Amino acid sequence: MKALKYQRARGRTAKRPRVSDFANRLFIAWRNLKLPTDNASVILAASGGADSTALLLALDELLRAEKLSLKLVVAHLDHGLREASKADALWVASLALELGLDYVKRRTDVKKRAARSGDNLEQSARRARYEFLKKTAKEYKATLILTAHTLDDQAETIILRLLRGSAAEGLSGIDAVRLLDSKSDIQLARPLLGWARRVDAEDYCRSRRVEFRHDEMNEDETFARVKVRKRLLPLMQTFNNKIVEALSRTSALLREDAKALSEQADKLLELATQRSDQKKGQTVAAPLNVHVLATAPAAVRRRALRQWIGQGRGDLRRLEMVHLAAVDRLLNGKLGGRTAELPDGCRVTRRREWLEFKSKQPNGVSREKS
Amino acid sequence: MKALKYQRARGRTAKRPRVSDFANRLFIAWRNLKLPTDNASVILAASGGADSTALLLALDELLRAEKLSLKLVVAHLDHGLREASKADALWVASLALELGLDYVKRRTDVKKRAARSGDNLEQSARRARYEFLKKTAKEYKATLILTAHTLDDQAETIILRLLRGSAAEGLSGIDAVRLLDSKSDIQLARPLLGWARRVDAEDYCRSRRVEFRHDEMNEDETFARVKVRKRLLPLMQTFNNKIVEALSRTSALLREDAKALSEQADKLLELATQRSDQKKGQTVAAPLNVHVLATAPAAVRRRALRQWIGQGRGDLRRLEMVHLAAVDRLLNGKLGGRTAELPDGCRVTRRREWLEFKSKQPNGVSREKS
Repeated sequence: MKALKYQRARGRTAKRPRVSDFANRLFIAWRNLKLPTDNASVILAASGGADSTALLLALDELLRAEKLSLKLVVAHLDHGLREASKADALWVASLALELGLDYVKRRTDVKKRAARSGDNLEQSARRARYEFLKKTAKEYKATLILTAHTLDDQAETIILRLLRGSAAEGLSGIDAVRLLDSKSDIQLARPLLGWARRVDAEDYCRSRRVEFRHDEMNEDETFARVKVRKRLLPLMQTFNNKIVEALSRTSALLREDAKALSEQADKLLELATQRSDQKKGQTVAAPLNVHVLATAPAAVRRRALRQWIGQGRGDLRRLEMVHLAAVDRLLNGKLGGRTAELPDGCRVTRRREWLEFKSKQPNGVSREKS
Repeated sequence: MKALKYQRARGRTAKRPRVSDFANRLFIAWRNLKLPTDNASVILAASGGADSTALLLALDELLRAEKLSLKLVVAHLDHGLREASKADALWVASLALELGLDYVKRRTDVKKRAARSGDNLEQSARRARYEFLKKTAKEYKATLILTAHTLDDQAETIILRLLRGSAAEGLSGIDAVRLLDSKSDIQLARPLLGWARRVDAEDYCRSRRVEFRHDEMNEDETFARVKVRKRLLPLMQTFNNKIVEALSRTSALLREDAKALSEQADKLLELATQRSDQKKGQTVAAPLNVHVLATAPAAVRRRALRQWIGQGRGDLRRLEMVHLAAVDRLLNGKLGGRTAELPDGCRVTRRREWLEFKSKQPNGVSREKS
């Protein structure tokens, strides 16, 4: 890391060093996303790969140039999946030390977790990572967590969702900024997502003479994402050289569509429950007025029913289009007493002018909420 | 065509012959699409390939079984692009004769047309085909034109649109039923689109012992569509064996989204022009109220601006997201006198609280309309 030291030294002599093009573009994205520029602690998820190393180095530039004034904490989770994972952890630790930044590490056994939870390896690793980041954020009273997802990650995600037959919400891809979860006020942001290609991150690391780490699991085509990256995207690129950017643009437009329709679905749900007998306060999946729903456009109604079922069940797991379509069909005609079955044993029943949600348990409270 | 004759003979002996599974599924789709079942003349576009031959044979079954009572006219356009095209035309003619159906043929020179119009071969062939079908429909006073697009055509179209970075409208794919054009009351329907795979059509032709024709241009990977069919879709299928159906489902959902948002855009345009000084009747791209637009969700506003520009210019050719984004930016702030340039020399100007459309010519009438 000689070159890095040299950069640091130069950074110390000039009071406000000129920042690189990569760091400059990061700063523009940072402001566009309205991320805090001072008085905040920020957790950066660093794997040691090119993307997160580039983000780390560029943030370091912005801190030194005093464009940002934040407490940056480097957080590394060792998934314990590979031989080299301990060496990766040491490498990230030494880079953080080099840059004078706080460093937090934890080791987990993703395989064990996966076996316990029934998740696959990718899901289990993802879950472990976000749990670790959340815990670290709380420890440091950080309000912002950063991950280094790039335009390429976005394109891969959109394609994976398309391969599953997702609708607009799924095809919206990864959020550039969102709350970590509905109960938290910690923000999760991806400041590279809207502009940086993976190759930009690699080039930038090289220009800083930092040898980022390689994860051999990124070469393993038994992972669908790796196969998309290695085989599907390159083939798509032979049709359109700017396919990654095109997918990102499409996802941004579909995100706008989904947002508008979801807001309308909220309003529709409000209207459809207005005249229901449900007691005030007891708003979880209150009966829905059939006539109010039936006049709404299909795209809004479908989303309203989905949200309503989510309220009733506590989650939307295993809910598929066939279930929604079955509930939607209850709106046709005047006949009451019909029922649509949902996964997990919940049911929706048409009773005259109302759709009623029946959870699995007799007390009307869904399992997840009790 | 011995087997075919046998089938016909069988059809004649039994008064209401049992129809095949393929014909049955066609009939279900026919009714779902609310296509006429009697008292109508129908033009069927027949290339001689598996898809249109299957549609022709299945319709013949339904006519013989008296499930449909229509005048069916077989229409074939010889594009003059291939050696074998004359033989194809003769083959379709003899099949129509065999089935006792009217047959219309025309020969065109697609290459010459393409050279004259600047279209590529595919566009030119498509345009020639639909002109021919429209003319034939008028001759026969037909109210319905059928093409034999399958689920596979739908998937290919969606992928081609995705490769171009289309939004929800583009990703909605091919319409199962639509008006041939805005000035016509002739319907264009694709009754195989929602359910039939190409292989189903081929299998059905074989089961009827009809040797459909092969178009060697369907093997030429310099055509993007052929390359999607031959290389991209098979690779996608290794991720999801039901990828064609998944894409069709996605497109149906995005179509619902686009429809809801487009209807809202109509309403928004109406609201935004309500207080404009434009004379009554002069509704072509009347000035738009900035405040009305600015409060609408981005997805609705974008579509409203697009429609409005289309009204002003007469078409939407070469209008891209960058142009729409430039017009959208005129809504920000309070400063008037700003202008966004459109392709073809049209402009949109912000004048105090209004967006004004300026066509290329000084009299305010756009080129296309004059």
